[in-house]
Amino acid sequence: MAKDFPTREENYSQWYTDLVTRADLAENSAVRGCMVIKPYGYAIWEKIQAQLDKMFKETGHSNAYFPLFIPKSFFSKEANHVEGFAKECAVVTHYRLKNSEDGKGIVVDEDAKLEEELIVRPTSETIIWDTYRNWIQSYRDLPILVNQWANVVRWEMRTRLFLRTTEFLWQEGHTAHETKQEAIEETLKILDVYATFAEKWMAMPVHKGLKSANEKFAGAIDTYCIEALMQDGKALQAGTSHFLGQNFAKAFDVKFLSKENELEYVWATSWGVSTRLMGALIMAHSDDNGLVLPPKLAPIQVAIVPIYKKPEQLEAISEKANIIRKNLEAKGISVKYDDRTTFKPGWKFNEYEFKGVPVRLAIGPRDLENGTVEVARRDTLEKETYQLTDIESKIEHLLEKIQENLYNKALNFREENTLKADTWEEFKALVEKGGFILAHWDGTTETELKIKEETKATIRTIPLNNKQEDGKCIYSGKPSKERVIFAKAY
Amino acid sequence: MAKDFPTREENYSQWYTDLVTRADLAENSAVRGCMVIKPYGYAIWEKIQAQLDKMFKETGHSNAYFPLFIPKSFFSKEANHVEGFAKECAVVTHYRLKNSEDGKGIVVDEDAKLEEELIVRPTSETIIWDTYRNWIQSYRDLPILVNQWANVVRWEMRTRLFLRTTEFLWQEGHTAHETKQEAIEETLKILDVYATFAEKWMAMPVHKGLKSANEKFAGAIDTYCIEALMQDGKALQAGTSHFLGQNFAKAFDVKFLSKENELEYVWATSWGVSTRLMGALIMAHSDDNGLVLPPKLAPIQVAIVPIYKKPEQLEAISEKANIIRKNLEAKGISVKYDDRTTFKPGWKFNEYEFKGVPVRLAIGPRDLENGTVEVARRDTLEKETYQLTDIESKIEHLLEKIQENLYNKALNFREENTLKADTWEEFKALVEKGGFILAHWDGTTETELKIKEETKATIRTIPLNNKQEDGKCIYSGKPSKERVIFAKAY
Repeated sequence: MAKDFPTREENYSQWYTDLVTRADLAENSAVRGCMVIKPYGYAIWEKIQAQLDKMFKETGHSNAYFPLFIPKSFFSKEANHVEGFAKECAVVTHYRLKNSEDGKGIVVDEDAKLEEELIVRPTSETIIWDTYRNWIQSYRDLPILVNQWANVVRWEMRTRLFLRTTEFLWQEGHTAHETKQEAIEETLKILDVYATFAEKWMAMPVHKGLKSANEKFAGAIDTYCIEALMQDGKALQAGTSHFLGQNFAKAFDVKFLSKENELEYVWATSWGVSTRLMGALIMAHSDDNGLVLPPKLAPIQVAIVPIYKKPEQLEAISEKANIIRKNLEAKGISVKYDDRTTFKPGWKFNEYEFKGVPVRLAIGPRDLENGTVEVARRDTLEKETYQLTDIESKIEHLLEKIQENLYNKALNFREENTLKADTWEEFKALVEKGGFILAHWDGTTETELKIKEETKATIRTIPLNNKQEDGKCIYSGKPSKERVIFAKAY
Repeated sequence: MAKDFPTREENYSQWYTDLVTRADLAENSAVRGCMVIKPYGYAIWEKIQAQLDKMFKETGHSNAYFPLFIPKSFFSKEANHVEGFAKECAVVTHYRLKNSEDGKGIVVDEDAKLEEELIVRPTSETIIWDTYRNWIQSYRDLPILVNQWANVVRWEMRTRLFLRTTEFLWQEGHTAHETKQEAIEETLKILDVYATFAEKWMAMPVHKGLKSANEKFAGAIDTYCIEALMQDGKALQAGTSHFLGQNFAKAFDVKFLSKENELEYVWATSWGVSTRLMGALIMAHSDDNGLVLPPKLAPIQVAIVPIYKKPEQLEAISEKANIIRKNLEAKGISVKYDDRTTFKPGWKFNEYEFKGVPVRLAIGPRDLENGTVEVARRDTLEKETYQLTDIESKIEHLLEKIQENLYNKALNFREENTLKADTWEEFKALVEKGGFILAHWDGTTETELKIKEETKATIRTIPLNNKQEDGKCIYSGKPSKERVIFAKAY
């Protein structure tokens, strides 16, 4: 355990920040609100990207790339979008610098002022729909199923590494369809991709559902989301998929000639997940000893540490260790054999524990004699001595077990921290305690905003296929047909 | 062949632009100088990225991510760097918009002016070395071998799709080393990676060499490059690898405690290739019938087109075609079986030819009877009938042959268009003609600039392991020890 590393109970917020920086995942940069994603953190993001990209392609999507800059006027074209988005943005006003007159530095060249300011994209619906206008003439040009991996900028006043940063990395899918039905199906298909990824790869259970009118994307008809619960009892929105109706098609005049030979506006969706997933991943599983990573997203799945006193012992251990490494790698498992002589085994043990490596193997001279290896699991911190026979299959199986255990642990935590509130007093007490709260709500934005004002809790989602039952809104007492999920959120 | 598609001879420049847009590779966007990379173009870029990323990782590098924005003052810290770079940039001056008073749009909120302007990165040495200062204390922290895949912005006045755009995509490696020797070795190692990639994957022969002082990177001690020759006789710089000495370490005060326990400045390299490679790839091989892609970078390597009159014929052909497709895919070959009924075979043939698909198979009812398939090569436009026996191996072999043929063709073209000039008259005539010119030069920037002024030709590179021979500078007549490569360039 790193020195001075706070426990979650002592200071959850500090625990998170220290974990991110000390485990070499990310750090703040010289530019306010912008982070540096360090190699170890970026390696996790690459695994996230690779798997999601595969799933997008398997569902028929292609990648493309659209400009970083968006003309200011584009944002005014979709009325709700401009209200929700165009305000806190990085604005490019000039395109040249020059030497200052005192010769000591550089200054903005006032002669190089742009006629129209450019906004660094906070999201790309506008520039993409401006482009789609030229791509779409007839139903034969549809659907367009395009995704973009990109950086975006939203000028945040209070930032936290991965969770809320001024610049972040994400993917944004933007699809165009002939019919409303097809666009809604696309929105839900992607929601399933996100949920599958969260549960099977991140080992993080999520609720799939709809956002309330107040929480939906600026410009969407309906916003669907996946919502997860963090260990401090706060919710985290991990991904959103928007059914945009014909809003952007109308704003950018994108029509197509239908099979019935009529000019119609195109139907749209957009959907995205970001480096925020890194924050969710870190918070979902890690503990007071540091990072805990699900095997499927761990850059190093197995670390092997030699234990020796004499150089000739190291040689014999290395021979064995390298065979194990190669055999594990042949199974597609990523292995680091750490034979550095500059660090002691104890230091290495701490290092891999803190960095969340799922399985650590230690091999000493006695193991060589006995044909054994010491196997330590990061998730349970248990150690066990394994016979070397068929060790690769055993490790492969263990990694699967760890993946499953992490998911089940997170699921149990969520179940234990999901409670029903039937009165306003109960509700307030549960908000104080943290966790997901299932409560009746009268369906109005007015009530939702009052609840938020008084408790800071918001409606995280209205679950898909939600159980219908008669009840009364915990705030207004008006009749309600279903419980929705409330929580305080990141 | 697409209608109105100009030949290279008629109008090379128009041929290039039409090819890029009509083959669905890229197009201009609503933002001046910024392009949209379309799915087919982006699929090629993904192949380029995947292979380079693999090569970077095999040589010990990791990816990371640094901020898009760089504080203006950072550029002033390295004297040469600011001269060469900080001028034509996108400058962010504000971080908020607001509704205009007439309610008709949005305007920049003057209350949200940044204290210090932020520059959209034109390259990241400054922000990265500002970060490395905190990463490096001792020789144990070295080397740092980091690469970043990112977008960058350089405000270009005259832009051309892929070749010169205001925003472009690239990778930039930034490494830190204990010794000068190690940094130089890194610079050359990456130059080899670039050359190998250009020759083996892009099928494009390149010269490896040094840039003259006048052409080197702003802030570098030495700039190495790979240079290719395009079909119009102009050179294209396809990648650069810079030995930066201790320039950035000094500018950002990055020191380390050496093994000898002394504080020393860190040695640096940086290196990059960009979406400009797409331009090189397109121009290196394509012809008057459209795009020609080397098999290793083609998103679709084999297209299969059914030829039929009756629906039941299509069914029988599809059965066969799908078997071939699966078997080819099992060999890692990407195949598109195009059974769309909305387009005729002739239209499809044109489409795949124009889009540079290396091999096209056509299967008709008679082929089914005879156990044959018609095989068309994009590079030579030759058609041949193959027996279906072992067709997958034959196609695999053919793809290798096409890859090799494209390289050899490009190499022959380069050899034929590389000539020696021994007098100023000869030199001027050769510049007029195009191609690489081998000529003696007196080694001064003064002469280089005069030659450029009079002929527009520049020194493309001083080849590595260049043959040493006595001669006289073609311009000044002063003594010279080697010929350098001149050309007009993109």
